[in-house]
Amino acid sequence: MAYQPLDEQTVIDYVKNRAPMQHIFPQDANLSASEVGDGNLNLVFIIRCANYPDRSAVVKQALPYLRVAGESWPLTRERVRFEAQSLMQYNQLAPGLAPEVYDYNDEMSALTMEYLGHHQIMRKPLVARQVFPNFVDHISTFLARTLFFTSDLYLTGPAKKALQAKYINPALCKIQEDFVYTNPYKTSPENKWNPKFDAEVRATRANAPLKIAIAEVKETYIAHAQALVHGDLHTGSIMVNETETKVIDSEFAFYGPMGYDIGNVLAHLVLNYLTHYAHTPNAGERAAYQAYLLDTTRDVWEESLAEIMEKAKAHRAAHKVTT
Amino acid sequence: MAYQPLDEQTVIDYVKNRAPMQHIFPQDANLSASEVGDGNLNLVFIIRCANYPDRSAVVKQALPYLRVAGESWPLTRERVRFEAQSLMQYNQLAPGLAPEVYDYNDEMSALTMEYLGHHQIMRKPLVARQVFPNFVDHISTFLARTLFFTSDLYLTGPAKKALQAKYINPALCKIQEDFVYTNPYKTSPENKWNPKFDAEVRATRANAPLKIAIAEVKETYIAHAQALVHGDLHTGSIMVNETETKVIDSEFAFYGPMGYDIGNVLAHLVLNYLTHYAHTPNAGERAAYQAYLLDTTRDVWEESLAEIMEKAKAHRAAHKVTT
Repeated sequence: MAYQPLDEQTVIDYVKNRAPMQHIFPQDANLSASEVGDGNLNLVFIIRCANYPDRSAVVKQALPYLRVAGESWPLTRERVRFEAQSLMQYNQLAPGLAPEVYDYNDEMSALTMEYLGHHQIMRKPLVARQVFPNFVDHISTFLARTLFFTSDLYLTGPAKKALQAKYINPALCKIQEDFVYTNPYKTSPENKWNPKFDAEVRATRANAPLKIAIAEVKETYIAHAQALVHGDLHTGSIMVNETETKVIDSEFAFYGPMGYDIGNVLAHLVLNYLTHYAHTPNAGERAAYQAYLLDTTRDVWEESLAEIMEKAKAHRAAHKVTT
Repeated sequence: MAYQPLDEQTVIDYVKNRAPMQHIFPQDANLSASEVGDGNLNLVFIIRCANYPDRSAVVKQALPYLRVAGESWPLTRERVRFEAQSLMQYNQLAPGLAPEVYDYNDEMSALTMEYLGHHQIMRKPLVARQVFPNFVDHISTFLARTLFFTSDLYLTGPAKKALQAKYINPALCKIQEDFVYTNPYKTSPENKWNPKFDAEVRATRANAPLKIAIAEVKETYIAHAQALVHGDLHTGSIMVNETETKVIDSEFAFYGPMGYDIGNVLAHLVLNYLTHYAHTPNAGERAAYQAYLLDTTRDVWEESLAEIMEKAKAHRAAHKVTT
């Protein structure tokens, strides 16, 4: 089937005709679709089933263009392949901590997966000062398992390199190289900021030691292929509810430094901490929630690290070298 | 054409029928072939031409097995692809410093290239205390150009990653990971040594700080993808004569740390320095040649580094960032 963008009608036939979807939707399923994507990057359809209301799915299809200029068609649609194969990897390595992948169709750049109807993007409840008692355990398990089991600490050289070859992700890495590590430190048309911060912006651009430090971590991002990292693991890429945590939107997945995802989670917890000076005027409420966020930040770091170290020790013991 | 090992008869027809070879050997060329490989890894044929004696070529064909056990057929024949594509890269980046590639046939795992009939493997003349006045300049140019122009210092992120994807070289990297970074530091059936060194061997295996240091550089070898490195650049992979220097045998080529090739050249000059305590009994001759080797070692380091820095500066000046 040649690539064509789906719509709320054609996506129903598409789903019904895909062999891997037969075990999700019975033959007599009465399906409806609603498009909920932002329309600029991807189409996202929620598929609901009137006669089997517990059955549902999400179809995510890459559009052949990116808002970022200059990217060519085949390069950019490939991003959904990186998302699909990394989510499948997560399903294996950290079951229950990412949406289940039902189907991936490379020609159509379409990924069909579990609909997370009872979860919300974590960024929002963090603003509303919600507490998630299982989050530390879940995200630390996700980080430790996906990082350790894709790294040289666990895989043989050839197995790791075979996996790495599937995750050479130039277009998406370029976005991070530019928007995270380059543009903010110089004059760039992509930079947007509140004029209140003009002085800070000027100071940042003039700060040579900072720029050298950023260049060093940029080199690590670019060249230090330690493990499969999600690559964009902020609180907008994590869906939560009272009992579950699901990592989504892994199209930036690539082989990079093991600290990248962990640091991303920690950084966004700290950012959320800071926003409560604006979001939460009541000093007592603010202090209580900020204390929760600080505990969470520390615990994610300590538990992720402890679990990686524990796995490395167990693996070493099982492959004891004769000296 | 399905893969089949060539012999001294069939290689003549093979060469005559390859389109890219038409400009090397005229149609009436009277060719003869002699096999000079060690027969365990590769077939190597020298093709000579009776009626045009200035025309010649070498055909190198990978055999479908390696002496190292456990490698599968398609993996190991691929090594000649890494050699062919890296030599072609060298032809572009450092013209004159590697044999010219005439033809590469992936199905036959056969690489046809310039015959270096007037050069010898550098290891031998170094033992015989020969001096090569152009060597420092040539090898520094080779190192600086092949490393700089394949690194993130020069290439854009997407261009570098596209090149890197062609050099994921699991089988050959595994050999170095095992034989350079692992086996020598533990009990391994692959280790061979003169019993005179038993005490040193035991001391090495018991030396925990050394093994930690080796593990750190092993991690760099495995995961630090900075530039296209030759991967096996000892003095047995360099052919020389009075005026020329040619880098050969690049089947270990992969994206790795920029210091790897430079360090390899330096290390083998130092090894040669040490062997002259045995090779050169005359103290005066020995001291003179060892002084030459030390000068060469220092100069290769300084000139390679200077040329890389100079190229980086020029590139930066040409792409001046507005702060």
